[in-house]
Amino acid sequence: MATLRIAEWATGLSYSDLPQTVVDAAVRSFYNWLGCALGGSNHPTTTTAVKALSPFFGIGTSSILRDQSSGSGAAKADASHSALINGIASHVHDYDDTHLETIIHPTGPVASALLAQAEALTAQGMTVTGDDFLLALVVGIEAECKVGLAVWPKHYDVGWHITSTTGSIGAAVAVSKLLSLFAEQTAHAIGIASTQVTGLREMFGTDTKSFHVGRSAQNGLLAAILASQGFTSSTSALEAKRGWVNVVGQGINRLDEMVGSLGKVWEIEKNAFKPFPCGIVVHPVIDGCIQLHKEIREKGVDVQGIKRVKCRVHPLVLELTGKKTPQDGLQAKFSVYHGGAVGLALGKAGPAQYADDVVRSNEIVSIRDRIDATADEQLGADEAEIVVEFQDGKPLKKHVKHAIGSLEVPMTDEQLQEKFLDQVSLVLGKEGAKNASDIAWGLKGVSDVAALVKAW
Amino acid sequence: MATLRIAEWATGLSYSDLPQTVVDAAVRSFYNWLGCALGGSNHPTTTTAVKALSPFFGIGTSSILRDQSSGSGAAKADASHSALINGIASHVHDYDDTHLETIIHPTGPVASALLAQAEALTAQGMTVTGDDFLLALVVGIEAECKVGLAVWPKHYDVGWHITSTTGSIGAAVAVSKLLSLFAEQTAHAIGIASTQVTGLREMFGTDTKSFHVGRSAQNGLLAAILASQGFTSSTSALEAKRGWVNVVGQGINRLDEMVGSLGKVWEIEKNAFKPFPCGIVVHPVIDGCIQLHKEIREKGVDVQGIKRVKCRVHPLVLELTGKKTPQDGLQAKFSVYHGGAVGLALGKAGPAQYADDVVRSNEIVSIRDRIDATADEQLGADEAEIVVEFQDGKPLKKHVKHAIGSLEVPMTDEQLQEKFLDQVSLVLGKEGAKNASDIAWGLKGVSDVAALVKAW
Repeated sequence: MATLRIAEWATGLSYSDLPQTVVDAAVRSFYNWLGCALGGSNHPTTTTAVKALSPFFGIGTSSILRDQSSGSGAAKADASHSALINGIASHVHDYDDTHLETIIHPTGPVASALLAQAEALTAQGMTVTGDDFLLALVVGIEAECKVGLAVWPKHYDVGWHITSTTGSIGAAVAVSKLLSLFAEQTAHAIGIASTQVTGLREMFGTDTKSFHVGRSAQNGLLAAILASQGFTSSTSALEAKRGWVNVVGQGINRLDEMVGSLGKVWEIEKNAFKPFPCGIVVHPVIDGCIQLHKEIREKGVDVQGIKRVKCRVHPLVLELTGKKTPQDGLQAKFSVYHGGAVGLALGKAGPAQYADDVVRSNEIVSIRDRIDATADEQLGADEAEIVVEFQDGKPLKKHVKHAIGSLEVPMTDEQLQEKFLDQVSLVLGKEGAKNASDIAWGLKGVSDVAALVKAW
Repeated sequence: MATLRIAEWATGLSYSDLPQTVVDAAVRSFYNWLGCALGGSNHPTTTTAVKALSPFFGIGTSSILRDQSSGSGAAKADASHSALINGIASHVHDYDDTHLETIIHPTGPVASALLAQAEALTAQGMTVTGDDFLLALVVGIEAECKVGLAVWPKHYDVGWHITSTTGSIGAAVAVSKLLSLFAEQTAHAIGIASTQVTGLREMFGTDTKSFHVGRSAQNGLLAAILASQGFTSSTSALEAKRGWVNVVGQGINRLDEMVGSLGKVWEIEKNAFKPFPCGIVVHPVIDGCIQLHKEIREKGVDVQGIKRVKCRVHPLVLELTGKKTPQDGLQAKFSVYHGGAVGLALGKAGPAQYADDVVRSNEIVSIRDRIDATADEQLGADEAEIVVEFQDGKPLKKHVKHAIGSLEVPMTDEQLQEKFLDQVSLVLGKEGAKNASDIAWGLKGVSDVAALVKAW
């Protein structure tokens, strides 16, 4: 009954049932997703997909998020391709949100499908309000994370990219909600989505990783659209003997437990946001170095007066990001030394600080070469200790117990906005980014989501 | 290296490398596929999918196979949707071909993708010859069946619909060949296709079963198109630690062995065709009854003079198809009694003999009720013994050692044509069906495949 129970829960939920904390988490999740989707819109992975697939685009009801004035290629597509492309863009910088218990990046598949379908509905003369949209986003993300938890961790361990394998299901539930499908139709949509198991971890490090996110958005959208016309699948798709959990769960099956917790434990409240566009293990060092940057500036000291920087970090940090002399932005993502250097020298570690010319600049290289890091098993994975020694004067010390972006120290709205502006300015310019940000914060209570998109 | 080896084999193969038996098998496979795709084109599963998804259709370069004069909905779509819809139609009657060693229905995913892309190329001013098309069909089917054999039987046992999970890969290889991609690009296409693992057996008995076939055609087409524009995936997608075989093979891994047999053992030569639109276990009884029909007619005896019919069959026959009093065409597919009755009374068991009114007709019901069947473990699954007793005169006896459609007794070209005409006449009328049949037999050596489609 798990499939039907998810469907019934989703169809029965009203906006007024959502706790304020859940609404806030949904707004922040959408806002962060939009920044990532706009920020990734001119990445070569995204533009290659647009170029390859634009011959298949149907009538343009839905946006391809990007600089609409750039004039290269379509700015609109059918809802299905819009979901695919925006989904790719939102994940391509590995900068999107994380449900830390499952490492699902939950908003990408769900929001990409939802926004595309909301615009398609508008093209048909209907209107989707901000509250309708947020409610659908919540039910989609809850379904996605619950089925993820049902098979965690073996599903991921064996090689499935859990973001997209569960994302198809989340997107299907969300779009079904937006279309006001009945519970049984929603169950069929879950079935059609669950049979499209997309995403092998073997693809990590290639264009196909972010394709997974876009494709899962598309899978879920397609599933809901088919189900809305009476296309049938199994309404026991998740729990049946040869259903999703048994086939891809590798013997783990917490489905009933997770379905029972729907509406009691809200997964979206456990969604975290990445402050820096690089592997999460580097974040404590960056966080500490940015804090030190401020202290150094307040003391009026020149960072070039730094003699030596000693970091103690969790062993994984050196294992995953021990690159001493990165040569470009991509390599710099795997260098704790670069992360520390831009934190200390610039007080920031956004996409601009990972540009190739910054990575190779004398200013950064000279600081970078003064940074040492040693592994210490006593430290947590989101912990770091940094000591900055100067040519003259007393050393400065910083202990980061939990890095910014962890559940213990979540990003504030202001920090989320800084992240948004840093990303989006590179695509839309500063003014465009600020405008997009203001509009996006206003999602809740807005009367027409599609009109909001138009204003970007 | 398996992924790259498949890609290299596929890109290196020329039409002149194909043995005549392989070319013949490819022509027959395509011919049978076309009959099934046209025959399934007005099935509610197919028309529901067209209705639901037509808002997403792009510029119509490629055919939606069906009665073009019916005027309901689009007759053309973008290549991706053409592949999806024709793939659904070709499988919806469970009447397509079978690679018996893996029970993959190999042509559906591959031909649906290929025909759609061939027409799209023509729309771009290029021409695909019949020989190009057949060569691509062969490499696609070989890749599909080899990767299927690599994980058979546990992959199927655990719950994967092996036709579509391998079909995405076959379609990707075939379309890559049609696009003349390099080996490395083809390997990327295999990667993008393999990461879209579509098809859970739990969906059998619903619209989603044939959706799997269409979606796998679409997955493979998409993969090849993306790879052609430089979109990357893993070139070790099949063999890597977290690649396709290890994630979905359930511990079975005969990949290297199967890749080593490419071009030595041709899987397409082992492709079989279903003579009757029902479960294969009923086929021996139908086969025998059709033969008896002829003998009875030759003797000038009225079949209504039959007193009793006694069948000995493999135990699976009664387990799967023991329905005594089917009420409609769908139920009749699970009735060995109906199959025997139409064989004896009408000498045929095509789609027309599974129409609801035939199933309920007095003529058939009265014969059906005189048929008994008993299970006998001594018999093979494709074996049956039938004894017909009359009111007057000597009984007639028929022993079918291997049913028609088995590898031992393959359908002749004439029988394939009868099957084609029986299916397609219901959609295009008799004349239209004959015309389509004549054109389809001429695929080999034709100068322009798209022009051939136009003529249907």
